[in-house]
Amino acid sequence: MKIALLSPIAWRTPPVKYGPWEQVASNITEGLVARNIDVTLFATGNSITKGKLEAVSENAWSEDTEMDPKVWECLHISNLMEQAGKFDLIHNHFDFLPLSYSRLIKTPMLTTIHGFSSEKILEVYKKYNKTAYYVSISNSDRNPALDYVATVYNGINEKEFSFKERTGDYLLFFGRIHPEKGTLEAIEIAKKSGRKLKISGLIQDQDYFDSKIKPLINDEDIIFVGNSGPRERDELMGGAHALLHPISFKEPFGLSVAEAMMCGTPVIAFNLGSMPELIVHEKTGFLVNSVDEAAEAVRLIAKISRKFCREWAFSKFSRKEMIDGYLAVYERILNPGN
Amino acid sequence: MKIALLSPIAWRTPPVKYGPWEQVASNITEGLVARNIDVTLFATGNSITKGKLEAVSENAWSEDTEMDPKVWECLHISNLMEQAGKFDLIHNHFDFLPLSYSRLIKTPMLTTIHGFSSEKILEVYKKYNKTAYYVSISNSDRNPALDYVATVYNGINEKEFSFKERTGDYLLFFGRIHPEKGTLEAIEIAKKSGRKLKISGLIQDQDYFDSKIKPLINDEDIIFVGNSGPRERDELMGGAHALLHPISFKEPFGLSVAEAMMCGTPVIAFNLGSMPELIVHEKTGFLVNSVDEAAEAVRLIAKISRKFCREWAFSKFSRKEMIDGYLAVYERILNPGN
Repeated sequence: MKIALLSPIAWRTPPVKYGPWEQVASNITEGLVARNIDVTLFATGNSITKGKLEAVSENAWSEDTEMDPKVWECLHISNLMEQAGKFDLIHNHFDFLPLSYSRLIKTPMLTTIHGFSSEKILEVYKKYNKTAYYVSISNSDRNPALDYVATVYNGINEKEFSFKERTGDYLLFFGRIHPEKGTLEAIEIAKKSGRKLKISGLIQDQDYFDSKIKPLINDEDIIFVGNSGPRERDELMGGAHALLHPISFKEPFGLSVAEAMMCGTPVIAFNLGSMPELIVHEKTGFLVNSVDEAAEAVRLIAKISRKFCREWAFSKFSRKEMIDGYLAVYERILNPGN
Repeated sequence: MKIALLSPIAWRTPPVKYGPWEQVASNITEGLVARNIDVTLFATGNSITKGKLEAVSENAWSEDTEMDPKVWECLHISNLMEQAGKFDLIHNHFDFLPLSYSRLIKTPMLTTIHGFSSEKILEVYKKYNKTAYYVSISNSDRNPALDYVATVYNGINEKEFSFKERTGDYLLFFGRIHPEKGTLEAIEIAKKSGRKLKISGLIQDQDYFDSKIKPLINDEDIIFVGNSGPRERDELMGGAHALLHPISFKEPFGLSVAEAMMCGTPVIAFNLGSMPELIVHEKTGFLVNSVDEAAEAVRLIAKISRKFCREWAFSKFSRKEMIDGYLAVYERILNPGN
């Protein structure tokens, strides 16, 4: 079985720091390679893989202001499409644009929909609904207008997340600094519960950071550590008392939620989107609806077994589970009669 | 011969007011249809053609803020690519993105390069240089890294431009309100030469308009009439003493320059880009290098024969000339042995 794995080129695959789609594309690639499957990763030239690497641009456009994204994206996608005949299946992690090439090639294309950035992109998914194959990353993220082959949860490499049996003393916010991710609410929860908060993430909304977050950072109980790579991430997550995830949008997955639990760290999340699929309420964390409820939940963290958090994450969000899931999907596409 | 004509969907084809690429795409479509060629125009649904119309979006994205350009562009392009087998030739006016689909279809694709919006898009043209066919719209716009089948000047429908034998009393600026188009320089030229100036065009750079242009508009000798449709354009151009075209960039063509001359109106242009190909110095206008030289040229306008301007435009930039040019190119592509 020859698989072409199409990653975005916004970031390196795997990303140096932020880049969730590239991270998942990498996790799948390396997981498949570990099972001796022939995978060619289409990604930036500076990407790292044990599979074959195909690239047209050395750098990622988010990290190289000289690059015109529209130019390099179409060169990147067409480079794969023009070689489609070499592969049994194309696994697309690049969102909707590759779909518009899919009827011009014979190789089947599976698209993992990493969420809908806007209702507007649905038009493309609708057009190709009957000829393309879609995987959702949570049941909650399914759009009723589309047909899906399966839900396959994002899987993470458990080796990158060390289990820490002892609970830490600080709360953690980990993710993009953006109102929808609830950085400010995390600060409020920390203050109400009298705990220290560490904040790590890419500043995606600079105005929000400058006006709402920065004035509250004091390097004592509200600490901003910037964007984190894998090593710092492992330490931050494992050392936390709990991860705070007070989102205000229907998050399709929540990689940091799975990652924290993999370290044994419980998660207190606002009950939206995929959160009830990721978190077992009162077992691996708490699903809450307000800052007050979240602060109350912080006081109950001792009730949570960190060991069970790890076990749960391992059983649902390990790389192995994800690879099993995708191999089953590949099989269904390539041998529909079986 | 079955031709698919791919127009952009930034504006209607033909545009209601501004939209030069859509204008040229329309001129070619209608010119081919008038010669009984089977043309399918791929454009917005509200477009107007005597050929067949194929559309996925009713509106143009510049006129409908609800539309996501990236979504509708890929739906628009793929709609043609998926039907490529129905056509003998695809004539692309959509810039570089359709090239990235071109090796996935069997139908040859000719691309008219309406200028390079940036050096960055050249990467795509370079990649497809050996398998695609390129036409330049002026010799000056040719990029040395690319091979071209021909230069075909943009042609305009002479019926939309009435010849006016008598010279008018005002100078005209006609085009996008943008520093590179020289709206401010046109005002300076008018002031230096003591003539009234009418300004018509789409405000593309609002800051420039607000800070540099608007304060000088007085509705007496500096008059802004807004964006113009075909009827107002004909009146404005024919009634002008001269068209001022004090550009500061290498303009690949200059539709308004050809249009003015078609009305008999001479053009005073800064000597850049395609201007020496469009204007016969001292015969259909003046090629100058400064505001002072331009103001001097205004005083010499009486020397120019308006009749010769019309004849020149007719012989070089008529729809007939352009259609002859493109038919010769189509022939070379479809019957390379002949």
